[in-house]
Amino acid sequence: MKALVYGGPGKKSWVDVPEPKIVHATDVIVRVETTTICGTDLHILKGDVPAVEEGRILGHEGVGTITEVGSSVDSLAVGDRVIISCIKSCGHCVNCTAGLYSHCLGDEGVSGIGWIFGHLIDGTQAEYVRVPYAENSLYKLPAGVSDDEAVMLSDILPTGFEIGVQYGKVAPGDVVAVIGAGPVGLAAITTAGLYGAATIVAIDLDKNRLEKAREFGATDVVDSSASDWKDQVFALTDGAGVDVAIEAVGIPPTFGMATELVRPGGHVANVGVHGKPVELHLENLWIQNINISMGLVNTNTTPMLLKLVASKKIAAEKFGTHHFTFDQIIDAYDTFSRAAETNALKVIITR
Amino acid sequence: MKALVYGGPGKKSWVDVPEPKIVHATDVIVRVETTTICGTDLHILKGDVPAVEEGRILGHEGVGTITEVGSSVDSLAVGDRVIISCIKSCGHCVNCTAGLYSHCLGDEGVSGIGWIFGHLIDGTQAEYVRVPYAENSLYKLPAGVSDDEAVMLSDILPTGFEIGVQYGKVAPGDVVAVIGAGPVGLAAITTAGLYGAATIVAIDLDKNRLEKAREFGATDVVDSSASDWKDQVFALTDGAGVDVAIEAVGIPPTFGMATELVRPGGHVANVGVHGKPVELHLENLWIQNINISMGLVNTNTTPMLLKLVASKKIAAEKFGTHHFTFDQIIDAYDTFSRAAETNALKVIITR
Amino acid sequence: MKALVYGGPGKKSWVDVPEPKIVHATDVIVRVETTTICGTDLHILKGDVPAVEEGRILGHEGVGTITEVGSSVDSLAVGDRVIISCIKSCGHCVNCTAGLYSHCLGDEGVSGIGWIFGHLIDGTQAEYVRVPYAENSLYKLPAGVSDDEAVMLSDILPTGFEIGVQYGKVAPGDVVAVIGAGPVGLAAITTAGLYGAATIVAIDLDKNRLEKAREFGATDVVDSSASDWKDQVFALTDGAGVDVAIEAVGIPPTFGMATELVRPGGHVANVGVHGKPVELHLENLWIQNINISMGLVNTNTTPMLLKLVASKKIAAEKFGTHHFTFDQIIDAYDTFSRAAETNALKVIITR
Amino acid sequence: MKALVYGGPGKKSWVDVPEPKIVHATDVIVRVETTTICGTDLHILKGDVPAVEEGRILGHEGVGTITEVGSSVDSLAVGDRVIISCIKSCGHCVNCTAGLYSHCLGDEGVSGIGWIFGHLIDGTQAEYVRVPYAENSLYKLPAGVSDDEAVMLSDILPTGFEIGVQYGKVAPGDVVAVIGAGPVGLAAITTAGLYGAATIVAIDLDKNRLEKAREFGATDVVDSSASDWKDQVFALTDGAGVDVAIEAVGIPPTFGMATELVRPGGHVANVGVHGKPVELHLENLWIQNINISMGLVNTNTTPMLLKLVASKKIAAEKFGTHHFTFDQIIDAYDTFSRAAETNALKVIITR
Repeated sequence: MKALVYGGPGKKSWVDVPEPKIVHATDVIVRVETTTICGTDLHILKGDVPAVEEGRILGHEGVGTITEVGSSVDSLAVGDRVIISCIKSCGHCVNCTAGLYSHCLGDEGVSGIGWIFGHLIDGTQAEYVRVPYAENSLYKLPAGVSDDEAVMLSDILPTGFEIGVQYGKVAPGDVVAVIGAGPVGLAAITTAGLYGAATIVAIDLDKNRLEKAREFGATDVVDSSASDWKDQVFALTDGAGVDVAIEAVGIPPTFGMATELVRPGGHVANVGVHGKPVELHLENLWIQNINISMGLVNTNTTPMLLKLVASKKIAAEKFGTHHFTFDQIIDAYDTFSRAAETNALKVIITR
Repeated sequence: MKALVYGGPGKKSWVDVPEPKIVHATDVIVRVETTTICGTDLHILKGDVPAVEEGRILGHEGVGTITEVGSSVDSLAVGDRVIISCIKSCGHCVNCTAGLYSHCLGDEGVSGIGWIFGHLIDGTQAEYVRVPYAENSLYKLPAGVSDDEAVMLSDILPTGFEIGVQYGKVAPGDVVAVIGAGPVGLAAITTAGLYGAATIVAIDLDKNRLEKAREFGATDVVDSSASDWKDQVFALTDGAGVDVAIEAVGIPPTFGMATELVRPGGHVANVGVHGKPVELHLENLWIQNINISMGLVNTNTTPMLLKLVASKKIAAEKFGTHHFTFDQIIDAYDTFSRAAETNALKVIITR
Repeated sequence: MKALVYGGPGKKSWVDVPEPKIVHATDVIVRVETTTICGTDLHILKGDVPAVEEGRILGHEGVGTITEVGSSVDSLAVGDRVIISCIKSCGHCVNCTAGLYSHCLGDEGVSGIGWIFGHLIDGTQAEYVRVPYAENSLYKLPAGVSDDEAVMLSDILPTGFEIGVQYGKVAPGDVVAVIGAGPVGLAAITTAGLYGAATIVAIDLDKNRLEKAREFGATDVVDSSASDWKDQVFALTDGAGVDVAIEAVGIPPTFGMATELVRPGGHVANVGVHGKPVELHLENLWIQNINISMGLVNTNTTPMLLKLVASKKIAAEKFGTHHFTFDQIIDAYDTFSRAAETNALKVIITR
Repeated sequence: MKALVYGGPGKKSWVDVPEPKIVHATDVIVRVETTTICGTDLHILKGDVPAVEEGRILGHEGVGTITEVGSSVDSLAVGDRVIISCIKSCGHCVNCTAGLYSHCLGDEGVSGIGWIFGHLIDGTQAEYVRVPYAENSLYKLPAGVSDDEAVMLSDILPTGFEIGVQYGKVAPGDVVAVIGAGPVGLAAITTAGLYGAATIVAIDLDKNRLEKAREFGATDVVDSSASDWKDQVFALTDGAGVDVAIEAVGIPPTFGMATELVRPGGHVANVGVHGKPVELHLENLWIQNINISMGLVNTNTTPMLLKLVASKKIAAEKFGTHHFTFDQIIDAYDTFSRAAETNALKVIITR
């Protein structure tokens, strides 16, 4: 089969590789029909994630059809169309039973982290993929949900919702600021209403993304290149700051913005993937009764979000801005990596 | 009357000042019979808290008898013996109705912060003190609770419990590390069992304090000057780290220790008062699903803690290590400020 | 002034009575400009609430202008337009500090219950009303909110939301059944989306109310006179029952319906005011892991709901179906009491 | 092998039956070394549980050694000593991923209920037992925990803790009443301190059990045959009632007692297994803001409770009052069924 293989920093190629096989009784094999690219894939290609070895097939998002099931798999069958979750879950370790699939201990020498596709085992940017712990890591696609919608449930929608909205403890009536209106920030924006956010402020430097943010549900937008950006946000509150500030960029200045915006008693939810330390102004913040959360998605809300996508309460299809076929995957990476110019959110890659 | 008056950085004196008077209908006047000194008072004397003006009477902890009540005060009467909470609460602002008394907006031009005694208005290291919003800021002393026990409920016990144990979301069976076994750390240690902590590890450089920590309920102690201090703590866990790390010192290295000790999905509860920024290693922590809390005490658990002190389930009297009279208050400050030599925890000052 | 005075079972009259005066320092006097009638008022008139004495002015909902303030009232002033909450709160008793204003202990011999207007003290169906604990019981009317909208915040909207939606622990994606599409049921229906309910099923015998329910946000309606009503509801779930069943009628059969509809692990939220016991089938339910809640509104969400009404996220004006002036209040009662014929939801009575 | 086989109402016998075999890849076979008898087993023998068919091996509690593992079982091995949980969990159905193992949907035609041993499949009162979904239903026995202690973790300790203490939302400082000081009531009493209960009142008719209750941690006991039993309980509160009332009997009068004892805003946790409906006085309770919970144990706290048993923080060995060998199991039933005379709590049956 063909797959996108990592060849070390800066190198990737769409080449022939052997098809995956069932290894454990709980595995299934999925024929991938739709996949997409994540910002993390770009990080890997920069060499930022040393755990990824040369020869690894990339990708942790996908939709496809089951072609083979392991001997202990009862609730899934060959022919089932499924969403592949970016996080595997053994279902019985101390972290999985606590809902913390992001830190699934597993049993197969792949320990302590739920994200393994395109990282510690071969991923989904391939014609076929082996899915471990399939009964806890795949979700059957209901009728009426397209692949374009479904593939947003592999990672981006649960990430924005769980790590942004839920960890940020958004509550009815809240003013929520989302810093960074890229795909994950937009996922937080579009799901903040599930806990009754009254005001959702998108903050970004990019005017195109701010416009997009309104389509995804932002009630207000603030251009953070304006010198009075902070005053503009405070003017949308009672003067004390926002209830929840969601950081969806991953650099020190935007994290600092989040801590400046939040009111006493409020929440900073970090969603961004950071590459260096940040300075936390505890000399001011210790007395502010704020809370700072962070984390990798657990994907335990995926079934719930899937219901809302199926009932058209979440407009998942809006994330897909560009379409490619598998053999155009190198072009897809190019378009996605130049998002500022191409206005790409998510690129959809189909068989 | 006599009171301890702040005279600018480094200066304090026990001098004659006018007695306080009722200003608002919700005020009461309390004759102070017992007070104590907090680490924050030392910070003020160093000049670290510029909001404190020269001429201010210091102190925010105390026990005494009501001598006068404002015209709207129904539930308190002259002669009632009361604990003075370090935090005032108007009872009707948006923060007070949310239980966030630490950020009480109030109405009297003293806005946005619950801690005002010995800070923005005159405090409790005096023969008499005016208490605003008395019905929300005083707690009647039940029979059988001594002044020595009661004065620990003004600040230290609710601070350790609310900002350490509750904000840290201690749960039954947890391994809890408390970094810093000074008075506030000991208050966290002695109340962690209220949520069923199974293992309570005290971490400090001072052997005397580690011994004390055992008396207050630590199940294990670790000398943080040992090169393998972290391994010692991890050996008390399942290998993944502690469930809750409580920082009770207030300097960058101890905050860093807390973030290193906590397991994925765990909690860092900062109780320490910090004077400078800390470096937060988001490049490692973003994926760890930890939570970092901080804040000023709300004192909304004071009535509950008082019940437990009254029923001898919390050994509040153990905090008081040294006793002084009001006219020895300068000596009391001296003893308290040299705690490493004097082994002082809290100094009790009585009329 | 004129007021609607209770004269014993079946008797009420719009008559001259003395104007109210400030009694406590925390009181204010409000000139009532808009009021409405609650189902509870009808119960009182039937003699079902023996605590209501002859001579009592009825009514616990209203909007008006402050004409006088007690000596300790700082945050409200003469001329302020305010919503009168149906629940008073002293702000400092053990129940108020826990947010349980419904059981405010108070200080004025009116102990243990938050609902006192038109019950234990004179009410709001009058030209003027004395409001105790005014700073905790009145909410300033923001610009852009009409009296017709605002008066729905006195009781009905917080009741539906707090006792139905919050006590029922509605969560994103839930299927919520609301049994009884009268005013309180509709208030639950229209606020269930604040916690992301995906499917909101209105169940009633009255076709007109089911139609109304759709306007208020029901996604589905079921006529409970149909023999297969239960199958119809289950068909909207995954087959295991609804996540939350809200009872908004107050009779044994509808309570029974709620317990039949709820899935294992689900919630029954009783909002209805009951006049007799119900049979609870614990022989079946003990193993079902359901939860049953009930209660009088606390109104601690009123400020939040007011923000959502102000921003037009809750269509409060839809509740007012009929309008009367104060001197037509007897007609207003007549219209409201014959709701099945008149299709009345709430009747608005203005000066 | 030998096993205790149900022969229809009133009939049981210790007879030869075939040994169990692995059926699914997720099964293991356990050689049972210690088992015990539950009140539910007595109900089955009365014919109260019609789902139990003649020929079924009884029992749902046990400790033993794994003798065979299914092909997908990675985290357990032959020779492991394990506690058998009374509840099976598939680990991937909608209820299991929500922690509601009590209603595990499973895959093997045994749907919607977690309790299957000695009910829908063969149980643990046998020399060997097949355990489905073994990785989610067995817990490895740590060193230092005896069989006598461990077998209390199969059912009784998690039931008292989860359905009594957790569902009852016991909080620090609470007054908790436990009605019925049989084994499950004692399990609630002995674990109520894990959430900081300050006062734990055991209520029973049996003086021996009240004495026992003190050993298990009750701070107060009330003989419910006294005419003033309710006044005695209220005297232990602030006069408003208990915070949490745990019903651990399963008959209408004791359920009624629980609803009479609870304060406004409090919790009734029903743990008892009921055989008939109860009358719920909603005409009084609708306004009381109480919450009523009920349910079958999920056993998701078993690993946590096991840690506390291992560290001797829960005195699990106190439940075992009488010892028998497997071939004396009929005598064991006799002793257990006459608990009022024999003062039996749990009878321990060993190989």
